[in-house]
Amino acid sequence: MPSGSEILRNKIKEKSILKIGGAFDGMSAKLVEITEFDAVWAGSFAISATHAVPDASIMTMTEFLQVAKNMVDSCDIPIIADCDTGFGGPSNVSYLVKQYEKVGVAGISIEDKIFPKQNSLLENGKQELLSEKDFVAKIIAANDAKIEPDFMIIARTEALIAGMGVDEAIKRATAYENAGADAILIHSKNKSPQEIFEFCDTWKGKIPLIVVPTSYGSVTIDELINHNIKMVIYANQTLRIAHKSMLTLLNKLKKANSLDEVNGEISSMEEIFELQKMFDIKSQEKNIEKKLKNMGYIT
Amino acid sequence: MPSGSEILRNKIKEKSILKIGGAFDGMSAKLVEITEFDAVWAGSFAISATHAVPDASIMTMTEFLQVAKNMVDSCDIPIIADCDTGFGGPSNVSYLVKQYEKVGVAGISIEDKIFPKQNSLLENGKQELLSEKDFVAKIIAANDAKIEPDFMIIARTEALIAGMGVDEAIKRATAYENAGADAILIHSKNKSPQEIFEFCDTWKGKIPLIVVPTSYGSVTIDELINHNIKMVIYANQTLRIAHKSMLTLLNKLKKANSLDEVNGEISSMEEIFELQKMFDIKSQEKNIEKKLKNMGYIT
Amino acid sequence: MPSGSEILRNKIKEKSILKIGGAFDGMSAKLVEITEFDAVWAGSFAISATHAVPDASIMTMTEFLQVAKNMVDSCDIPIIADCDTGFGGPSNVSYLVKQYEKVGVAGISIEDKIFPKQNSLLENGKQELLSEKDFVAKIIAANDAKIEPDFMIIARTEALIAGMGVDEAIKRATAYENAGADAILIHSKNKSPQEIFEFCDTWKGKIPLIVVPTSYGSVTIDELINHNIKMVIYANQTLRIAHKSMLTLLNKLKKANSLDEVNGEISSMEEIFELQKMFDIKSQEKNIEKKLKNMGYIT
Amino acid sequence: MPSGSEILRNKIKEKSILKIGGAFDGMSAKLVEITEFDAVWAGSFAISATHAVPDASIMTMTEFLQVAKNMVDSCDIPIIADCDTGFGGPSNVSYLVKQYEKVGVAGISIEDKIFPKQNSLLENGKQELLSEKDFVAKIIAANDAKIEPDFMIIARTEALIAGMGVDEAIKRATAYENAGADAILIHSKNKSPQEIFEFCDTWKGKIPLIVVPTSYGSVTIDELINHNIKMVIYANQTLRIAHKSMLTLLNKLKKANSLDEVNGEISSMEEIFELQKMFDIKSQEKNIEKKLKNMGYIT
Repeated sequence: MPSGSEILRNKIKEKSILKIGGAFDGMSAKLVEITEFDAVWAGSFAISATHAVPDASIMTMTEFLQVAKNMVDSCDIPIIADCDTGFGGPSNVSYLVKQYEKVGVAGISIEDKIFPKQNSLLENGKQELLSEKDFVAKIIAANDAKIEPDFMIIARTEALIAGMGVDEAIKRATAYENAGADAILIHSKNKSPQEIFEFCDTWKGKIPLIVVPTSYGSVTIDELINHNIKMVIYANQTLRIAHKSMLTLLNKLKKANSLDEVNGEISSMEEIFELQKMFDIKSQEKNIEKKLKNMGYIT
Repeated sequence: MPSGSEILRNKIKEKSILKIGGAFDGMSAKLVEITEFDAVWAGSFAISATHAVPDASIMTMTEFLQVAKNMVDSCDIPIIADCDTGFGGPSNVSYLVKQYEKVGVAGISIEDKIFPKQNSLLENGKQELLSEKDFVAKIIAANDAKIEPDFMIIARTEALIAGMGVDEAIKRATAYENAGADAILIHSKNKSPQEIFEFCDTWKGKIPLIVVPTSYGSVTIDELINHNIKMVIYANQTLRIAHKSMLTLLNKLKKANSLDEVNGEISSMEEIFELQKMFDIKSQEKNIEKKLKNMGYIT
Repeated sequence: MPSGSEILRNKIKEKSILKIGGAFDGMSAKLVEITEFDAVWAGSFAISATHAVPDASIMTMTEFLQVAKNMVDSCDIPIIADCDTGFGGPSNVSYLVKQYEKVGVAGISIEDKIFPKQNSLLENGKQELLSEKDFVAKIIAANDAKIEPDFMIIARTEALIAGMGVDEAIKRATAYENAGADAILIHSKNKSPQEIFEFCDTWKGKIPLIVVPTSYGSVTIDELINHNIKMVIYANQTLRIAHKSMLTLLNKLKKANSLDEVNGEISSMEEIFELQKMFDIKSQEKNIEKKLKNMGYIT
Repeated sequence: MPSGSEILRNKIKEKSILKIGGAFDGMSAKLVEITEFDAVWAGSFAISATHAVPDASIMTMTEFLQVAKNMVDSCDIPIIADCDTGFGGPSNVSYLVKQYEKVGVAGISIEDKIFPKQNSLLENGKQELLSEKDFVAKIIAANDAKIEPDFMIIARTEALIAGMGVDEAIKRATAYENAGADAILIHSKNKSPQEIFEFCDTWKGKIPLIVVPTSYGSVTIDELINHNIKMVIYANQTLRIAHKSMLTLLNKLKKANSLDEVNGEISSMEEIFELQKMFDIKSQEKNIEKKLKNMGYIT
């Protein structure tokens, strides 16, 4: 069976663009797989939100790793883990790469903000960048730590988020490629994809480009392909529809006279049993029973 | 500040019926609080499902405890933890009571099935009951282990689920009250609440009755109150609407030409930031800055 | 690089007997490696003891797995994990095999006692055995769950511990081999190895035999080899010398007038730094510096 | 029952000096209690070492917290947790204080080095200090986050370790007291206690002083008392004797012909059973049996 990172590398070669769905736990990751996305994005914003904790480097590597491992255990498609700033300096990055690769994650993304970070889309949030040199040191550490060549180190530059312009973003992305990054994630909080397009059109590197169009949601798949973008990450829409739908249902349920007032809208117990492989337990039991019969233990 | 178990005990005294919302992580628990339910049910079915693992005693106490602790840390309303069969024998029950009480959970529920258990609503699932004596031993162990008198030990009988009839259910519930249980959860998988009503009308005990009307969703709040039911748990509707809504959105998003095709339906980033208290980080920063100014460090 | 289970299988072929050292955390495992034992035994008694928790199925699979993973991460020699009764029924065994194999453990051992178990050497402890059929079901489940053929499923029979005699032990061991076990661990709490020898001399199976001579410490390596024993596990001596030496030192230190009164007896800081690879961090830093120089970032 | 922090505060009032023993897991903490030390130091160097991981901010807050919680669960004496640099910035410090206080730790220590840190006694290790202002911000955050007034925030200055002299150390310690610290830990890597004495004699603050005489082991208890030092932490001697004794035993055992060659030196199984409260399980069982008899379930 090919590893997650092999599958991911092959898809990059074969497809014009990869659609990557954001998830925050085993079930949402499984739903991303079921709906035929190419890979899962284990996003730190969404994972922090489901733990009701700020997206500000409060949750630890241990906790994020556990969620990513749970996704790998549940899914056959590749899992890409959002590792924020790398949870510290180069030695932390080296450690995290070893840990994530071991549990079967296909690739990790680290960004060039200062630890502890704040969410990139938080209004008036702190968006200070690390020096290029210090982030290059992290990429070198990541690259040295990985064992399987296919494991992907994604360097995410926040130069546009920090208001430093396309030239700085290009300079940094180039430096990160030279340091050994396997892909560049270029992020923006503009309502328009203009600066992203400008970046992509200027980019001379050989490694794939990735975007997360949370704030410029009008951009089309064709535009992304035309500007040489190889992966698009829909990072947090699963989280936000789960939030919306639970809030709406709970409000209704609080006032309802009976469960039937909401029961029509929700998935059945059987659909959940299916997802969590309850029926595998039953077939496993039957299989064991059959073998016990063959061995003469039951008749 | 009163503890979760104190708040829960007071509500039981004051209200005709308590509405308890099921949750599976910090965010869903927080939404149960925001929509003004009386308490949160940390259900093992829902928690297993979000980990994409069967509801069959596969996840461990360590993992369930961690989720419950995360809910306590996020919410001010009481958290009630579904502890399945107690994760083993009396010594395991003793241990779990100490652990859950320490992290601030208001009460725990244990059920009289054999470990490892299977979900009560699984068609053709194994629903063998432990002997009354062996479950009474668990209640004794639970009761001896708790420190705060308000901490609630909920004894859940699966006698109706196992098809053993109302008399057996009454006999067991009475035994569990005598052994020190603080409430009885009477469960049924019938489409009608008839056997539940029969149980409640026959019941002579003094401790409160709790139901989980997942399968008999037509039952009304007034009926529940009329049959002396003190708490109703809506155990897994949040899970099932989250599943449904994410599945629908992902299917649409997979085919969509742009994010804007789904963006209208989902919660805003700001709503999520609010839930996860991102803005507290900012006010915390301002508070520190003010103090640093007073101390002369910044001007 | 060969996997832990490959290394273990090769050693079984090449050596007359394997010496396996018990450990309970990363450091003790590393010391077992440094002193050239063939493999590490991650024993549940020792791990429970270092958590100050009874050896009675109180700690969960999650916690034991974490310790075993930490050992795999720290060592190059194979890690064998003591999984008690398998933490439940066949579905739990199936789950644990997948989890332990994934993190790189070379093999696991499960025993035919009833869950929750008590330590085999506890005076007047409960030592009830599961029926042969029910334990065979667990072996079948374990065998079906493993992916790498070299991964070892060790079936441990407690028939002698439970006072059921050599014939019952042989009967069970044979059944476990037929069900797919890769080795038999035959345990005894006698002060003499006599019943162990009797078992081994009667045994007609093809899979290797393993012993844990905690109670019959006079048995010699030559005797073990002569009776066809392929692995000897020194399960808890590291734990017990650590306990003894810390107790002695702390008693002395409590009364001491200065640290120098005990400093002569203990390992140096440098020896600990060496074990925990502190110096790797420094060489990693130098390596990164060198590359940063080559890239022109520093001069 | 008084909390750990209350006990600690009372001891500070009553005793001329507190002796605090270093530990790294539940068992070593329990041994510190048994030998009548005043409190346990959950040291990050020792905990990292037992995980075979460098003492360089590699292990996460989650992992350290888990160890500290295990100690609180096992011991009645106060647990003081070494939290290195606070695992990030002020928001991380705020979060950790809430988490550690909740699990029952009596106090935490944070130091004024830059995250990620390196061990203070590592030759040629990086020992850069954070600016006074930035560390004051962490103390403010810690102080604002604590709920119980007795919970202790220990500010550890590494000014002497960094070679910045006694004046800088005094300046910083004073600033930290003004910012709300409850005690000052003054650290040194000199072989002589001279600079520590100089610091203590110059110190005009009101909060207690703490030392860790790992490198200046000749200093006597009387000298510490004479220089107004209120707590002495023997941070890692338990770790180092455990390392030494296990290494010696394993070397011997590897060559031994039988276990009896080492069995005389080690603690008995019963001593370990005692520490891990195996016998409590048995008395718990008897207690339950008695109650089951009273209730007529057994005769």
